[in-house]
Amino acid sequence: MSAFASVAAFETALAALPGPDRTALAEAAERQGQLTKPPGSLGRLEDVAVFIAGWQGVGVPRIDHGRVAVFAGNHGIVAHGVSAFPAAVTVEMVRNFQKGGAAINALAAAAGLELVVVPLELDRPTADFTTSPAMTAEECLAALNAGAAVVSEGVDLLVLGEMGIGNSTAAAALCARSFGGSVTDWVGPGTGVDAAGVARKVAVVEAALACHADAPQTPFETLRRVGGREIAAIAGAVVAARQAGVVVVLDGFICSAALAPLAAAHPAIADHCIAGHCSAEPGHARLLAKLGLAPLLSLGMRLGEASGAAVAAGVIRAALAAHAEMATFAEAGVSAA
Amino acid sequence: MSAFASVAAFETALAALPGPDRTALAEAAERQGQLTKPPGSLGRLEDVAVFIAGWQGVGVPRIDHGRVAVFAGNHGIVAHGVSAFPAAVTVEMVRNFQKGGAAINALAAAAGLELVVVPLELDRPTADFTTSPAMTAEECLAALNAGAAVVSEGVDLLVLGEMGIGNSTAAAALCARSFGGSVTDWVGPGTGVDAAGVARKVAVVEAALACHADAPQTPFETLRRVGGREIAAIAGAVVAARQAGVVVVLDGFICSAALAPLAAAHPAIADHCIAGHCSAEPGHARLLAKLGLAPLLSLGMRLGEASGAAVAAGVIRAALAAHAEMATFAEAGVSAA
Repeated sequence: MSAFASVAAFETALAALPGPDRTALAEAAERQGQLTKPPGSLGRLEDVAVFIAGWQGVGVPRIDHGRVAVFAGNHGIVAHGVSAFPAAVTVEMVRNFQKGGAAINALAAAAGLELVVVPLELDRPTADFTTSPAMTAEECLAALNAGAAVVSEGVDLLVLGEMGIGNSTAAAALCARSFGGSVTDWVGPGTGVDAAGVARKVAVVEAALACHADAPQTPFETLRRVGGREIAAIAGAVVAARQAGVVVVLDGFICSAALAPLAAAHPAIADHCIAGHCSAEPGHARLLAKLGLAPLLSLGMRLGEASGAAVAAGVIRAALAAHAEMATFAEAGVSAA
Repeated sequence: MSAFASVAAFETALAALPGPDRTALAEAAERQGQLTKPPGSLGRLEDVAVFIAGWQGVGVPRIDHGRVAVFAGNHGIVAHGVSAFPAAVTVEMVRNFQKGGAAINALAAAAGLELVVVPLELDRPTADFTTSPAMTAEECLAALNAGAAVVSEGVDLLVLGEMGIGNSTAAAALCARSFGGSVTDWVGPGTGVDAAGVARKVAVVEAALACHADAPQTPFETLRRVGGREIAAIAGAVVAARQAGVVVVLDGFICSAALAPLAAAHPAIADHCIAGHCSAEPGHARLLAKLGLAPLLSLGMRLGEASGAAVAAGVIRAALAAHAEMATFAEAGVSAA
């Protein structure tokens, strides 16, 4: 059974986003105040533990089954020369993920996370969105549901990422259509194009905005017109995780851009998300500010494939370990201030 | 056998600091360029892997025996009301470390690190350094050697931290005497004193600078006059680690301040150190800039006891995992840019 039976079902889910459990939030915050440390002295580690408590609905949250999901898709716009790498790399890297040789394999293992790789019709790139919608409604809905499907029973932390040659251009188009601003604010070097490449990306995004100017400004229409399958899948996973009370760790610019069209209409969509890191892609910091998210890490990473989010998951594990395992002042017989 | 048989031996070691292995650095950098990712796209993770390769002297470095060492000491200056907590908390927290109930217990375990706790004559606080040197030469040398002793054979990453009620005032005095600047640049709230407490800390540091103004400006004299046992131990551990080619992960303001008097005379002392994080203590960012270190994390932590450095060690593990486990473009059959 699909999470979203129709486009309307997806829009309905977005309009009825649940909030965190206030009792669990209060319980976790009270516990933090009793642990053997000056109040607040673990900084963001304290915030992360309380945040996850709220979404898991328990005072002492756990990660027993953390999952990384990496979605992959191909893009019609690569014909415009928007990437430093050939489109064949998407399928080659998916094979690399499946054989265990990519960065995300090492980083997911280091963080104790299961890795699920979801290739989405790699032999059928999206349409060139400078002249038509990237996907039909059926294709986009299928991608949303492929994303939602990774939120299985028992998963208690969801780390999201993507692979798709050309997709930083789609991400820029999503941001520009959702939040406005200058197209150049949203376009960057991606995996490493030069100034001429950046100019080609800007031209593609401008053409896309013009082509779809009269289309409805709904989350679904923006996703399907200027997004991509792997990006729509991330959006579907984010919404399904919200419904299940599962905290999402977002990766870089492209992963975060999946939320742009959703956030433009429903600003609370990122409330259950942690920005794993701020990437080196210039638009990412701007996008995180629009989403109301403060990144946990800032390590100059710009690989995608959930790599930065997986590193952040290790920090999140540390936060939960301190929250769960520390003694209180009373238990340890330590004097308070 | 002690690492430093005399004060002169310590000063000699500082004057003959070894550098990294250039061959290993080149080997690791070349490997990073062949792994299946755009060059540089793992950001600081790449830098960290190459850095550790240089100090370990191998192209593919490992952490098989990472150790956290937390040194604890008591301070005569607590009589001036420089801390929000009573001095008894130092010994109470050491007991908490030994029983496994502190933040560092949880965070060391989460990062797969052994924890060694080294209490340093907690029943004999240092002398009040506003009127006399904190330690005799013998006491300071003993503390340096207690620090050096944690660098045992086989340890391949050393994560350093401290516990000592009152020691953020000693750290400020070390920074002010080593680097100059306004005393208020180096004094902050520590574990949480109010404005009146900060003013008392400033007065103590000013009195200390005046009292020791005519003493020699050597690393050893500054450490023994306005430092503390746990701080001198960190300095000893840092120098011994350098001699052994072991990378050090520094914690917050107090831990980093142990390097201030060393760096004032020997600016390369921090070359084998990673600043685990930038703490919330205002002087820490300023101190890291003086040491030439860019922090790996910035999570608003301000607990000490190696807590921030231990979280950083998890990120360092991720960096080494990616470096060691990823496939090259050739191995994976992935097309290059």
